[in-house]
Amino acid sequence: MDTALDLSSDLVSLTRAVCDLPSVSGDERALADAIETALKQHAHLEVLRDGDAIVARTTLGRSSRVVVAGHIDTVPIADNLPTRLVGEGAQAELWGRGTVDMKAGVAVQLALAAELSEPTRDVTWVFYDHEEVAAEHNGLGRIVREHPDWVAGDFAILGEPTNGGIEGGCNGTLRAEVRLTGVAAHSARAWMGVNAIHAAGEVLRRLEAYTPREIDVDGLVYRESLNAVLVSGGTAANIIPDACVVTVNYRFAPSASVEEASAHVRELFDGYDVVIVDAAPGARPGLDDPLAQEFAQAVLTITGGAPAAKYGWTDVARFSELGVPAVNFGPGDPLLAHKDDERCVVGQITVVHAALRDWLTA
Amino acid sequence: MDTALDLSSDLVSLTRAVCDLPSVSGDERALADAIETALKQHAHLEVLRDGDAIVARTTLGRSSRVVVAGHIDTVPIADNLPTRLVGEGAQAELWGRGTVDMKAGVAVQLALAAELSEPTRDVTWVFYDHEEVAAEHNGLGRIVREHPDWVAGDFAILGEPTNGGIEGGCNGTLRAEVRLTGVAAHSARAWMGVNAIHAAGEVLRRLEAYTPREIDVDGLVYRESLNAVLVSGGTAANIIPDACVVTVNYRFAPSASVEEASAHVRELFDGYDVVIVDAAPGARPGLDDPLAQEFAQAVLTITGGAPAAKYGWTDVARFSELGVPAVNFGPGDPLLAHKDDERCVVGQITVVHAALRDWLTA
Repeated sequence: MDTALDLSSDLVSLTRAVCDLPSVSGDERALADAIETALKQHAHLEVLRDGDAIVARTTLGRSSRVVVAGHIDTVPIADNLPTRLVGEGAQAELWGRGTVDMKAGVAVQLALAAELSEPTRDVTWVFYDHEEVAAEHNGLGRIVREHPDWVAGDFAILGEPTNGGIEGGCNGTLRAEVRLTGVAAHSARAWMGVNAIHAAGEVLRRLEAYTPREIDVDGLVYRESLNAVLVSGGTAANIIPDACVVTVNYRFAPSASVEEASAHVRELFDGYDVVIVDAAPGARPGLDDPLAQEFAQAVLTITGGAPAAKYGWTDVARFSELGVPAVNFGPGDPLLAHKDDERCVVGQITVVHAALRDWLTA
Repeated sequence: MDTALDLSSDLVSLTRAVCDLPSVSGDERALADAIETALKQHAHLEVLRDGDAIVARTTLGRSSRVVVAGHIDTVPIADNLPTRLVGEGAQAELWGRGTVDMKAGVAVQLALAAELSEPTRDVTWVFYDHEEVAAEHNGLGRIVREHPDWVAGDFAILGEPTNGGIEGGCNGTLRAEVRLTGVAAHSARAWMGVNAIHAAGEVLRRLEAYTPREIDVDGLVYRESLNAVLVSGGTAANIIPDACVVTVNYRFAPSASVEEASAHVRELFDGYDVVIVDAAPGARPGLDDPLAQEFAQAVLTITGGAPAAKYGWTDVARFSELGVPAVNFGPGDPLLAHKDDERCVVGQITVVHAALRDWLTA
């Protein structure tokens, strides 16, 4: 297979080339090599590398710097490569693993990195590894820890799929265990025990009766979710269970801290043993930032779409923690990410490319 | 180790000898051999064998035949052998695996089998294997299937521990799964799914609100139990679960058939998908039978104790299915069965022996 990338080819061809070079998490080396080689052909870029993450940046002394980032890994292929193009023109769909999450976005970024030798803002292009696996392996997190200067900037755009619209910030996420205890007994003499599974009934009833909140943050409405995601109790069919655990996942608006989100969960399950297992803060949309407002206006002009809230946790939260306002903006329907029928409308790739180019050259 | 059994030794010594010859389910051979050898020394007994089950019976042409049965296997040893005797006289306790479940009862049966060469009723003594494991391996079940004539009789006594009192019949047992279904979704967009675990809340609420019945059957009150024993739902902490299963165990009075018990469970969970996974009918106490009444009177005379209901399922149900009235009667506190601190009061062994001997020779 020819693994060279021609960054001057048309966007669909470039997206296909990036997708057809499989790079499931942990196996990004070949694609990282191809990206590094292609970017190094452009004298206006300084190219850096850490593991399988590539950073390329202009150093034009502009008054502001924008970081545009995308991950190059995918979830495992499901017999959906090589890519295939179905239909014609802007309505055509490009099918295959990575077309949505998020190699169409990566292709747009690669094309622009090569094309924009004189952007009106300095740009740092980040292509990173290990996004689709445990957070500890995340390539962007590694760069933030080990080379924070590589990702310094005034505003960040993450190319996660958003159907070609701006999705600002992201909800936070928290996992808690509600732990019920009882007293074991033989099930033929149940009255000698205390049933921990029965005790979970009230916990589930509260969840069923709970109406998730919708919270306005900087003009975007974040819809929350609070759900039991796992339940486990009992050891055998003839034993009254002395333990039952309901695992709850709370997706909370970025206006709340992890501490506030934890308090909300503890309040809902008042009277129960609640253990916060892990949590990550959300990211405010950052749309009060002047650069963000300019970018939103540029996108509105091209696509007609106003910013919306991002519900799922994404790496924009890493920029937010650095104090860098960040939004999600990329081609592809996020509901198709990771699916066997993953596919991206070609028109979205073109529009995202046009909006970014216009703004970075205005 | 000397594996010979001296059936004429005192009851405590004989019980210790039977316990100190370990016979965890599947490893009963040595004890079965010792029992067969010991019983064959008594000319008044016809001794039969199937696998590791031994049957010894008198053939005196009496007008009625009593079957007295006990299992010779135990649950695994928990560092509680060899036996040790703590205390003095009738209050002394014999500690160790099997002292309760149910080798003290087996020792009583072995002593009486040897001793009673002229019982007033013909007696069939059954010593069987594999009671403490899956029902399909049960030695008594095997004999019922393959040699039904070996266990034919007018009345049966099972030596399961009952604290030296008669416990009539037994509750039936039924296992059902209440299966909840939903629609999977990413937990960041919970509103696109339907949460199957939340749906289990109402199932558990009904269980918590349920008051188990107490049902009089032939003069004995059977206390029922109906409990969730297992619950399992969800696949990952970021997925709205599309499936949850609550496993329910119903211990039902022997006046109800399996069909009636199933209907009771289905009625409680009306509107839900209920699957009966397995079930075994209970056994009526059989105390309306003249032989049972005579035996109850004999026990009352010796112990002062009236019959009570057996809550746990026991092999008396196998006799009940054959149309043979059966009761449980043996030394030992059933709550200590299978425990690390399993131990039997010596006085109960003596009293059970005396009551059986008096009745079988009256």
